[in-house]
Amino acid sequence: MYPASLEKLIQCFRTLPGVGEKTAERYALLISESDPEDVRQFAEALINVKEKLHHCSVCGNLSEGERCSICSDASRNHRQIFVVQSARDVSAMERTNEYRGVYHVLNGLICPSKGVMPEDLNIEKLTERAAQADEIIIATNATLDGETTAMYLDRLLKQKCPDVLVTRIAHGLPAGGMLDYADEMTLSHALSDRRKMR
Amino acid sequence: MYPASLEKLIQCFRTLPGVGEKTAERYALLISESDPEDVRQFAEALINVKEKLHHCSVCGNLSEGERCSICSDASRNHRQIFVVQSARDVSAMERTNEYRGVYHVLNGLICPSKGVMPEDLNIEKLTERAAQADEIIIATNATLDGETTAMYLDRLLKQKCPDVLVTRIAHGLPAGGMLDYADEMTLSHALSDRRKMR
Repeated sequence: MYPASLEKLIQCFRTLPGVGEKTAERYALLISESDPEDVRQFAEALINVKEKLHHCSVCGNLSEGERCSICSDASRNHRQIFVVQSARDVSAMERTNEYRGVYHVLNGLICPSKGVMPEDLNIEKLTERAAQADEIIIATNATLDGETTAMYLDRLLKQKCPDVLVTRIAHGLPAGGMLDYADEMTLSHALSDRRKMR
Repeated sequence: MYPASLEKLIQCFRTLPGVGEKTAERYALLISESDPEDVRQFAEALINVKEKLHHCSVCGNLSEGERCSICSDASRNHRQIFVVQSARDVSAMERTNEYRGVYHVLNGLICPSKGVMPEDLNIEKLTERAAQADEIIIATNATLDGETTAMYLDRLLKQKCPDVLVTRIAHGLPAGGMLDYADEMTLSHALSDRRKMR
């Protein structure tokens, strides 16, 4: 239907998550009408991300230097480690402005059905870091794979560093959540993890 | 939150239509995990679209050559011209495999409130082509701007080439459409444009 160069760009956009044929077409046609300088910068940004970005040697977060900005920040509490699945989770948590410890990014979750086993994840380094930590906060998603990974990490850390405190983020009703719309799992968590009011 | 190169890519993705902060983040993070060769090809595809693509000198459709593949196709009826807003509409119509004439792409619609006037569109060339045509099918969208443009073109063509047949695509209930979900405008078109059944 379209000239070859446009078709090629449509196929490139289709590799992005959740982008179908129609959306990829809209993106590519917008690019074909954009300012050439903007498009050149876009292309450069793509290349730069691959060339400059790698994983922080300490926590596995995305970083341009050898250590990420959080691991390099001496004002943060390096004895408290918040364990997440991906760099996106770090960004989401940082937005709360509530947490002053450091992170550990697993870069995935254990999922035997997809062939992702513990050795494929950034877990070994976590056990090394845990030996010098006060608390490990396991903050994987509240999904099947997230819970599997959380249980695995808990057992592993209890075995390797029995003295470190291992915690799990709270599960329950989200802010603004309504009881009658919440699913059974959420309500059952909300009940079992209830706290004493003062 | 993110390293500078990733932030820059997120901003680039945000310029795409309908892409917000979260979606741009997802796209950029996927790129950061993609195969470097795929990303290089993506960047190249962006540049190529700007370098190779221009408007067909005859109809205004997107093309890599001086004439688009449809205008270069001698087997098509060059005396029947289907007038559309954009290259996407050409692609949509071609998918029906029903039309064997040629196209004319306006590359926009008349919209005084956005400052788009007839002289900003690919209209002058249409009047030149119309002189050698049998039929001009006006197929702009069934929106306010589309109807304004259709009416303008009809009046202009009647004045400049009084002998050419000017038609407008049919408006009515879409395939699979239900009367009780159709809006008043659609129903009123469906009524006024009703045809005799055989």
